[in-house]
Amino acid sequence: MTDSIVYRPIGIIHSPYKTLEDMPIQPAGAKGKEGLIIVRPEFSKGLRDIEGFSHLYILYHFHRVKETRLEVTPFLDSKSHGVFATRAPVRPNPIGLSVVRLTGRSDNELRIVNVDVLDGTPLLDIKPYVPEFDVFRTDAVGWLEQSSKAVASHRSDDRFSGS
Amino acid sequence: MTDSIVYRPIGIIHSPYKTLEDMPIQPAGAKGKEGLIIVRPEFSKGLRDIEGFSHLYILYHFHRVKETRLEVTPFLDSKSHGVFATRAPVRPNPIGLSVVRLTGRSDNELRIVNVDVLDGTPLLDIKPYVPEFDVFRTDAVGWLEQSSKAVASHRSDDRFSGS
Repeated sequence: MTDSIVYRPIGIIHSPYKTLEDMPIQPAGAKGKEGLIIVRPEFSKGLRDIEGFSHLYILYHFHRVKETRLEVTPFLDSKSHGVFATRAPVRPNPIGLSVVRLTGRSDNELRIVNVDVLDGTPLLDIKPYVPEFDVFRTDAVGWLEQSSKAVASHRSDDRFSGS
Repeated sequence: MTDSIVYRPIGIIHSPYKTLEDMPIQPAGAKGKEGLIIVRPEFSKGLRDIEGFSHLYILYHFHRVKETRLEVTPFLDSKSHGVFATRAPVRPNPIGLSVVRLTGRSDNELRIVNVDVLDGTPLLDIKPYVPEFDVFRTDAVGWLEQSSKAVASHRSDDRFSGS
């Protein structure tokens, strides 16, 4: 088993959230919030044709996380769960994953909305979000079933229309 | 900017694909293919309650990738695109992302289907897949618009039912 894997940020994500206290505790709280991704100029060529996609996955490093916990009590619940059954940042490998809407590009800068990361977050990767690959109908969403009324409908609906 | 980020695999993904030539070139080719995730025992506690979720994101390291390319011609197209506008593994940080269906758990082993990774792939993270957070209606899917008829419908439909 490979023991150490070394990555380097491909850029930085800028957002309105300067401190952890500013952060939305649910993705819905990030709706409409604007951010800016600045990709390192040496990777600009990798962005060719990205402006054709309305939504992108961003993978990033939770750089402010200084601890790992295997059991956590998420914001959305009062009970603790294994960290891999949550999106909490205190993970063994603190990699974050979000879907953002791409609203514009100038060279190595991407304007995004629905950003839910801290200002200054190191960006690891960008991938196109493609419903054919990325949309699944779930049978169960575990502890979130009770915790979030909004999760009652397991399928995409118009709440995300235009977002 | 943080310059080096070091992660360690939390486990290994086993799949029917022993060589790159065996791999499906489209996610649809992975449908129903069974795999097994073996999480390192020291992280077992992090899996508590994960069996409540039918679908999981897995993040992994493309361990067989030895090069980085900023422009690639994907399997699904005859034209080249920036690597961040594709899912090609030859990325600056070779992190893979898939959604799999969880069919069972025994301690630190997770049985999964719809696996599309090479046997022996180092696992970086597991997150619950939650439609409320993860399903978006796209306006555009870039070069994939022309390349894949199946992408014509941008929304979830019954094709994934039961998968």
